[in-house]
Amino acid sequence: MKEDQTISIIPLGGLGEIGKNIMAIKYKQNIIVIDAGLMFPDDEMLGIDLVIPDISYLIENKEIVRGIVVTHGHEDHIGALPYILRELHVPVYATKLTLGLLEAKLKESNNPETVKTRCVKAGDKVHIGPFEVNFIRVSHSIADAVGLGIKTPVGTILHTGDFKLDQTPVNRQIIDYHKIAELGNEGVLVMMSDSTNADRPGYTLSERLVGEKFDETFRKASERIIIASFASNISRIQQAITSAYKYGRKVAVVGRSMVNVVSIAMDLEYLDVPPGILVDLDEIQLLPKNETVILTTGSQGEPMSALSRMAASDHNRIEIIPGDTIIISASPIPGNEKLVHRTIDQLFRQGAEVIYEPFSGVHVSGHASQEELKLMLNLVKPKFFIPVHGEYRHLIRHAQLAESVGISPENIFVAENGQVLEFSEDRGLISGRVTAGRVLVDGLGVGDVGNIVLRDRKHLSQDGIFIIVITMSKETGTLIAGPDIVSRGFVYVRESEGLIEETKEKLRSILNQCESEQVLEWSGIKSNIREVVSKFLYERTRRRPMILPIIMEI
Amino acid sequence: MKEDQTISIIPLGGLGEIGKNIMAIKYKQNIIVIDAGLMFPDDEMLGIDLVIPDISYLIENKEIVRGIVVTHGHEDHIGALPYILRELHVPVYATKLTLGLLEAKLKESNNPETVKTRCVKAGDKVHIGPFEVNFIRVSHSIADAVGLGIKTPVGTILHTGDFKLDQTPVNRQIIDYHKIAELGNEGVLVMMSDSTNADRPGYTLSERLVGEKFDETFRKASERIIIASFASNISRIQQAITSAYKYGRKVAVVGRSMVNVVSIAMDLEYLDVPPGILVDLDEIQLLPKNETVILTTGSQGEPMSALSRMAASDHNRIEIIPGDTIIISASPIPGNEKLVHRTIDQLFRQGAEVIYEPFSGVHVSGHASQEELKLMLNLVKPKFFIPVHGEYRHLIRHAQLAESVGISPENIFVAENGQVLEFSEDRGLISGRVTAGRVLVDGLGVGDVGNIVLRDRKHLSQDGIFIIVITMSKETGTLIAGPDIVSRGFVYVRESEGLIEETKEKLRSILNQCESEQVLEWSGIKSNIREVVSKFLYERTRRRPMILPIIMEI
Repeated sequence: MKEDQTISIIPLGGLGEIGKNIMAIKYKQNIIVIDAGLMFPDDEMLGIDLVIPDISYLIENKEIVRGIVVTHGHEDHIGALPYILRELHVPVYATKLTLGLLEAKLKESNNPETVKTRCVKAGDKVHIGPFEVNFIRVSHSIADAVGLGIKTPVGTILHTGDFKLDQTPVNRQIIDYHKIAELGNEGVLVMMSDSTNADRPGYTLSERLVGEKFDETFRKASERIIIASFASNISRIQQAITSAYKYGRKVAVVGRSMVNVVSIAMDLEYLDVPPGILVDLDEIQLLPKNETVILTTGSQGEPMSALSRMAASDHNRIEIIPGDTIIISASPIPGNEKLVHRTIDQLFRQGAEVIYEPFSGVHVSGHASQEELKLMLNLVKPKFFIPVHGEYRHLIRHAQLAESVGISPENIFVAENGQVLEFSEDRGLISGRVTAGRVLVDGLGVGDVGNIVLRDRKHLSQDGIFIIVITMSKETGTLIAGPDIVSRGFVYVRESEGLIEETKEKLRSILNQCESEQVLEWSGIKSNIREVVSKFLYERTRRRPMILPIIMEI
Repeated sequence: MKEDQTISIIPLGGLGEIGKNIMAIKYKQNIIVIDAGLMFPDDEMLGIDLVIPDISYLIENKEIVRGIVVTHGHEDHIGALPYILRELHVPVYATKLTLGLLEAKLKESNNPETVKTRCVKAGDKVHIGPFEVNFIRVSHSIADAVGLGIKTPVGTILHTGDFKLDQTPVNRQIIDYHKIAELGNEGVLVMMSDSTNADRPGYTLSERLVGEKFDETFRKASERIIIASFASNISRIQQAITSAYKYGRKVAVVGRSMVNVVSIAMDLEYLDVPPGILVDLDEIQLLPKNETVILTTGSQGEPMSALSRMAASDHNRIEIIPGDTIIISASPIPGNEKLVHRTIDQLFRQGAEVIYEPFSGVHVSGHASQEELKLMLNLVKPKFFIPVHGEYRHLIRHAQLAESVGISPENIFVAENGQVLEFSEDRGLISGRVTAGRVLVDGLGVGDVGNIVLRDRKHLSQDGIFIIVITMSKETGTLIAGPDIVSRGFVYVRESEGLIEETKEKLRSILNQCESEQVLEWSGIKSNIREVVSKFLYERTRRRPMILPIIMEI
């Protein structure tokens, strides 16, 4: 296809995974990037702090990257920006709240002079190189979220961002159906849409229902109320504050991220807080319990969060007591179930009443379910469709939904990160592949922990390590000191003296044998030791610790 | 209270946890034990294979243990018996299927001469010491499950076992309402009831609905059908076979535990299998795809299971191909969500259609929900109530349900494992505490992995290990060889030569300083090394590997 008649869409993350959303759109020698999020590590990524996208492709093409457009302020859409903006010094376009949250993150880690931000609002239209980007209001579990209508010389691309069709959003900012319908009418070449809930039938409930449930709980609670929620869900926080006001309670905010977000949201006027209702923790401790609410982090049972510490009687200022009503206003993210359950159990043990999901109605999702996704598809009527933001099953389900509303299967692309999808007015195809993948962040190291290190951590975690140290003569190859044995995470050594002694016996006979067979290479001796000791320990314990022979030569 | 007027109930497991169910009932110098299950390890029990109850109390009292009564054949009720029957040579009372499953387990691990089993059936009454044990039919997700009505000189104890109130069970064996009502009428002193689903409103759906969903899926599927389920859910397997027969398909069974259970269930006539419908895998591979069904294990995404291996294209005989319809007939057990999701995604990637929970109706729970639990409470009308089988929040919710149907709060005991609950005709109290806890099984080791080993495994899993070896003179305290550094799971060494060299510099200066300050104790030198290196590495990497200094002396 001719270059000026095609547009390429290159997902660099967010397909086949939840999180790490990032996508490049290229027209001739111009690229814009949509979002740059992080992902939290899988259970198998032992010791890893977070996961960011591999942006080699963008770095290779840094001369033609014109800007980064951000849909909303969640970590899976902005979390990798502090890393990426060290490499790409291009302007970031986002709405006010999104920028507020981003700037707080950048302050901690980036050189402010290299970061250029451009504040936009829903309804705005911005030209970036050859692209006209229309910011379209959508509803989501964070305020100020937008979808993108991107007009290009080849045709219009519509990217929904994360969204749901909330008919009664708390901030009354309804999704801009009219703009979406208008673009649909004019003709959309390619649509990319949020697949997170594509396997859920029906409609996602309105955020407002959570407020009604809060009201009901506030009406019944006779003592203190503690609400744990995602810090970024400002509508949720608004509803907690509104209920508190209605029932004559003061509110204290606890937990670093909750304090940060509330402060940013108030500064930027995204929270409507009646005067005097927010008080600090010292003050709230002096009030009668039935006049107080504590808003806190920890809805995912994160071990260091405020709520988890309260639950474990390990918070220095708040003690859970019988009579407390605790609302966990969130669902566990897959993988966090056990942590959340443990926190709930601990809170019950302290005598609190706990209201938790999935049966209580104190949480709703921020993502569209099947009927909403189909409605969006029908409104936009795209020629080509790419389901995005979801694990593979979600993408497949979303593709099936698209087919069910009449999009022809050959125009639906269930793509993979790194694939280059090329579209002309009447044709779409996968035309190539660029580097895309996961970069692991561990402490200060970005990308320095690879498969070998992870495999070793996994091995160490299962059966520990068994270290054998011997000192040998460089010249004669005879044993000078040792063998000494140190183990960690294998057996409790004081109770296994017999096993250790027997292993030393084995070692001495290996060393004798090596000597008599004139094995003089340390590597030969080491692999001998590894094999024999490994077999011996497995027979005796059915465990396979990492065997690490160390030979000191003098 | 006088000994002959009181009965003690001693939960040794299953309270505040899911699994590891075991309970002792004591009257004067007589104990019977109810169930003896295992639990699968938490994420934090790194490298542990399984968890069994601490039965020190029973071993101390082995002279007066009269028998073990088993409610049903699930692992969380029978899984610890192979271990416990090595210590206690007492008869085991259970129904035919339960014994069939148990005996298959015991064959692998126990001396058959020491194990005495007594086969009972629902409706039977057995005298064990002073106890008259009535076996009462209940519905559950395994056939031949019973509750227990235990008449004692002090009063009747009713233990529901795991149950649901299925009005249309697949095997038509409806829970014995009449016996339960009869006992309730005569007066039940203490009731213990299954709390697993005590936080779910409403009623648990009938197993039969799964069969209807199977039928619908079979009707629509145009190629092969693969069903993954718990091996022990014989009603589920029955329904799969019934649907296969109805739609003219043959069935092959795959996966070790599925093959075992189907064979036991057929031998004992718990499965109604039309002649010729079960064929082996070789044969089914030759049939047209639309005449075949494969029944398999792996519904929890267990990495070594048949389904997981098929999903990963790693099964030596079955390849997933486009056109396959795969039914995952189970819900993920908390903690398994990510494994199940990964399996589903891989199956979709192979081109299969996958039908999975929670939105498809191909699974129902085996445990009673709130309305059923209240009905059971109303039928039994116990004087005292102990919620059992559940994490703490389930016990609390069940206690709240009991209160809501009129049991007075002071007669409800939310107890802990190891507490001794003593009841007379008109009084109940917690009268003491015995040893109860978790015994970790790792390979051949039962109980030899404790907190220190687990803490080390956790530490090793996060940032690996950093080993420093030096050889020093015993007499002069001078350095003879080293420092050598070996790390695993910390950084990839080939890419971190600078860091290692700098660490060696640090080490040399520590050793010099120790020499000049005349620190001659190895322990002093080691703790010096640990402190300095730990701080240095943290500054440079923000990681905290385990630092292990080893000094060889010659």
